[in-house]
Amino acid sequence: MTNKKEVSAAIIIIGNEILSGRTKDTNTSTIALWLNSIGVKVVEVRVIPDIENTIVKTVNSLRKNFDYVFTSGGIGPTHDDITAESISKAFNLKYEIHKEGYKILESYYKPGEFNEGRQKMIWMPENAKLILNPTSGAPGFNVENVFCLPGVPSILKSMLGGITNDIVGGKPILSETLSLRTVESEIAESLTNIQNNNEDVEIGSYPFFHAGKLGVSIVMRCDDKMKINICKTQILDFIKEKNIEIVDR
Amino acid sequence: MTNKKEVSAAIIIIGNEILSGRTKDTNTSTIALWLNSIGVKVVEVRVIPDIENTIVKTVNSLRKNFDYVFTSGGIGPTHDDITAESISKAFNLKYEIHKEGYKILESYYKPGEFNEGRQKMIWMPENAKLILNPTSGAPGFNVENVFCLPGVPSILKSMLGGITNDIVGGKPILSETLSLRTVESEIAESLTNIQNNNEDVEIGSYPFFHAGKLGVSIVMRCDDKMKINICKTQILDFIKEKNIEIVDR
Repeated sequence: MTNKKEVSAAIIIIGNEILSGRTKDTNTSTIALWLNSIGVKVVEVRVIPDIENTIVKTVNSLRKNFDYVFTSGGIGPTHDDITAESISKAFNLKYEIHKEGYKILESYYKPGEFNEGRQKMIWMPENAKLILNPTSGAPGFNVENVFCLPGVPSILKSMLGGITNDIVGGKPILSETLSLRTVESEIAESLTNIQNNNEDVEIGSYPFFHAGKLGVSIVMRCDDKMKINICKTQILDFIKEKNIEIVDR
Repeated sequence: MTNKKEVSAAIIIIGNEILSGRTKDTNTSTIALWLNSIGVKVVEVRVIPDIENTIVKTVNSLRKNFDYVFTSGGIGPTHDDITAESISKAFNLKYEIHKEGYKILESYYKPGEFNEGRQKMIWMPENAKLILNPTSGAPGFNVENVFCLPGVPSILKSMLGGITNDIVGGKPILSETLSLRTVESEIAESLTNIQNNNEDVEIGSYPFFHAGKLGVSIVMRCDDKMKINICKTQILDFIKEKNIEIVDR
């Protein structure tokens, strides 16, 4: 519906802690907002368990279908961190100590602290490109179009800036939101007409409850600011006609 | 690794608002915690866009591979709500007005308010079983092992109780968490040994930053309380030996 030459990405969240419900995933949002800003659209997200065969199959399926794949989780030092070994298998590459990574962690830790557990963090697929970690030392890595990041949200976030130059995106995807004091069924028909008249703008309609009141957020997304503005004007026209209040949200 | 006769589920989050990063998904956690309590394990989550062909393919792939599939989103009255029609196509069923659903909404709304936009919400796959909505009237629906729920978190949550009896789960999956003032690499080796000695307990290790301090949460999951207790005792032994502090988290 939007830009035909769009650059696409998939995200793989590797982690039993998300599947168990214990932890809510915020990394998808962090990665997606960053990708939007550099013109890449997230088209699919999968959350999968720490099982080697599942990781290998999922990575191999998605890396063929999307321009970029980002994984989150499973690159630490414990027994349930199996992302690097799984990615090696997915690409049929040796799983070995990364020399440059070794040097980084060797100088990051105090003498004697760089033990076997910590060394696990720089076992990677052969010739992987490092993704530097300004927060806690241990790097992520990149093989072809697959970028492997940690699961801890603040660390993941701190590493994205370092790979922005490795991603070739399209035009940034812009969005504009109008939040209305109404319910969806009041505006459904008008919104359908406007969507039909503005095919390049993706219009989403999201009901919300806020401070005990119902409302609907209308989100317009497109890589062309002008097209968003035209669409917005048409929406403002009909909400004025229907006497619908705009609210902060 | 855990119970071999486990009952499995997949969740499909249908929604461009999650893929765009604008909204963080909380429905996965809500559904997963509820399913755990009735002995069903979530094994995969996919977040996909509001595109009919993608919904049809994803539903048809997952409903064959898992005991239950839950969808969230896309059952409202607007143009981007295409879940019910897509599910009809996935099952090769007629897409039609659900008579019982029609009566529910007809009496829910004031006379004259049950307009065409609202009527869209009770177009469903032929013979679908309704999932009642105590919050806002419009029901979800169930076809075979697929349960379709709305995207608004508070409404989705209010509807789960109504389908608990339709789900045949195994033993509830229990979990216990120990949060420690340490880093993963200090405990990785001991934890690997304990995982090897306690194959039926799934042990996860999750680093966190909290109040400016590093820590690790160790989560033990199993359907057998006794096995969790044995595993916990072994962990308590080694953290005592290593002089590691337990923290609230």
